[in-house]
Amino acid sequence: MTIKDIARLAGVSVSTVSRVLNNHPDVSEDAIKKVMAVVQKYNYIPNTSARNLGMSSSDNIGLVVRGISNPFYTKIITAIGDKIEKSGYTMVMQQITTDEDELRIAAMMEKDKRLQGLILLGGHLNHTKEQVASINVPFVCCTFSNVYGNLDNEQYSSVCIDDEENAFNAVKELYKKGHKKIAVLLSDVDDGTVSQVRYAGYRRALREFGISEDENLIIPIHSFNIADAYHEMGNWLKKGIDFSALFCISDNMAMGAMKALREAGKKVPDDVAVIAIDGIEASEYTNPVLSTFCQPMEQIGIKAVNVLVDIIDNEGTHKHLTLPTTLREGETLK
Amino acid sequence: MTIKDIARLAGVSVSTVSRVLNNHPDVSEDAIKKVMAVVQKYNYIPNTSARNLGMSSSDNIGLVVRGISNPFYTKIITAIGDKIEKSGYTMVMQQITTDEDELRIAAMMEKDKRLQGLILLGGHLNHTKEQVASINVPFVCCTFSNVYGNLDNEQYSSVCIDDEENAFNAVKELYKKGHKKIAVLLSDVDDGTVSQVRYAGYRRALREFGISEDENLIIPIHSFNIADAYHEMGNWLKKGIDFSALFCISDNMAMGAMKALREAGKKVPDDVAVIAIDGIEASEYTNPVLSTFCQPMEQIGIKAVNVLVDIIDNEGTHKHLTLPTTLREGETLK
Repeated sequence: MTIKDIARLAGVSVSTVSRVLNNHPDVSEDAIKKVMAVVQKYNYIPNTSARNLGMSSSDNIGLVVRGISNPFYTKIITAIGDKIEKSGYTMVMQQITTDEDELRIAAMMEKDKRLQGLILLGGHLNHTKEQVASINVPFVCCTFSNVYGNLDNEQYSSVCIDDEENAFNAVKELYKKGHKKIAVLLSDVDDGTVSQVRYAGYRRALREFGISEDENLIIPIHSFNIADAYHEMGNWLKKGIDFSALFCISDNMAMGAMKALREAGKKVPDDVAVIAIDGIEASEYTNPVLSTFCQPMEQIGIKAVNVLVDIIDNEGTHKHLTLPTTLREGETLK
Repeated sequence: MTIKDIARLAGVSVSTVSRVLNNHPDVSEDAIKKVMAVVQKYNYIPNTSARNLGMSSSDNIGLVVRGISNPFYTKIITAIGDKIEKSGYTMVMQQITTDEDELRIAAMMEKDKRLQGLILLGGHLNHTKEQVASINVPFVCCTFSNVYGNLDNEQYSSVCIDDEENAFNAVKELYKKGHKKIAVLLSDVDDGTVSQVRYAGYRRALREFGISEDENLIIPIHSFNIADAYHEMGNWLKKGIDFSALFCISDNMAMGAMKALREAGKKVPDDVAVIAIDGIEASEYTNPVLSTFCQPMEQIGIKAVNVLVDIIDNEGTHKHLTLPTTLREGETLK
């Protein structure tokens, strides 16, 4: 007899059985009665193979954060942690570098931490069915979706903004101010991350506005780090390529780029207009204040947990939510 | 028979028993043999009271982060999470607001998450023996110590910088540049937090340099938030009080203050010199770059875990580590 059998016989979810057995505070008296009736009737004891002890006891939800110390994630992690706790689960978080494979880490974590479900915060948009086969619990892609992969919508959930559309709109803001020589600062054009899809929005905007794409205006930094953005932007500026505006795929990268622009004697926004996507708190305090499309970070975190817990607790279906952004006018547009 | 008995009979630590029983990858073959010999000899099975199932299975270390989304904690949390994982434990994190009581949350968490140990990231420096009586596992104060409380050194560990001395040195840097009208931006002068002890360092510096303290130059914002620093600094500037330098007790607060100074038409550093303590990444990208004493964040996180795991695994003693800072010259001193 497993806790799955108990769940079936008691008419409650597996996670409810788990919480009853683990003496979790957030469980109804009714659920306790139902579960304990089955436990007593069938004289249930856990697997006594010592190596498997405790396998039935987890209320863990895993959070894999891709991108160590990325400030964009700070508020989302806070919201996710708070909501997981309020839902009666325990958040187990692991931060990985962008060089690591989030699915491999997630699969190890699922076993090691006996997860009930999983949230991937940041990751690749090109996961395949083969790659996710190692994940045996429901999972939510948070801040991205499977744009370039072949997953069925029923295989995973996602909560994010429309990255392509937001990149399009960012470039549109620059175009509306008269800019045509618009550089783009990104991680890579084809790395299967949010960088690629935001680059696609940049390209579509150029096309729609009748601007021919210029390879010299693409600045790949091969990471999402503020320090790399600063250094690569500085190197690129030394080439002396003519441009009047810069679209940065993230606030963090824009902050690095603005320091490089200042050191190169370029005034923002008089010499170069700057716009980005994300809306982190620090970029409200730059000089000048960064113009950017703000993601609803708290809502992204809360909804990711809601979707996942609904699947775990109520056998809910996978969902795909696209949330709206808001433009922070800032001071870097002209 | 409990896992404590097994540990005693097998001659290994309780956490090693826990890890063997939980099939944890990071455990030696030798430990597995010793533990399983005892388990088989005594025919050990876990407590079969279903309500207590799993009570012996935790390898959780709790992390209570006081100050939601405070960017100062980002790198420390990353280092702590990484080191806990490498030590064979699981990090369970909870973020709380500065209004909440970290010890109450920690005590609840200890029960609910069956913690083996606890790290408090940020908190009060005035905990009493009565207040910590509810904590039954070893704990480490990370980024603070019990300066104003009555705990015995053997009751807790701490890993932090010398906050009083660093505040003294920050004011000394301003004094060396000729400043005597030095304002201080802080949370509160007597809130029992790092704000109080850094204020003490500010006062000692004024005393040693023969500057009489002026109440008008104390700017309390009643929080550690960047937005509050910005608003309260703006309000204070409207009073028109004469000053030439500003010591901010944190980088984050300095970033808020610098925006208020700019909006009030005060140039940094020409009109007002600014210095802070912490050394977060974002303040390297302000315009001008913030001058600040940088905490060794990664080392603080790693050492906090090392001290705790040594106590859990090896019955190590509590330790109190004070780590050095480094001055980032920056551009806000003149």
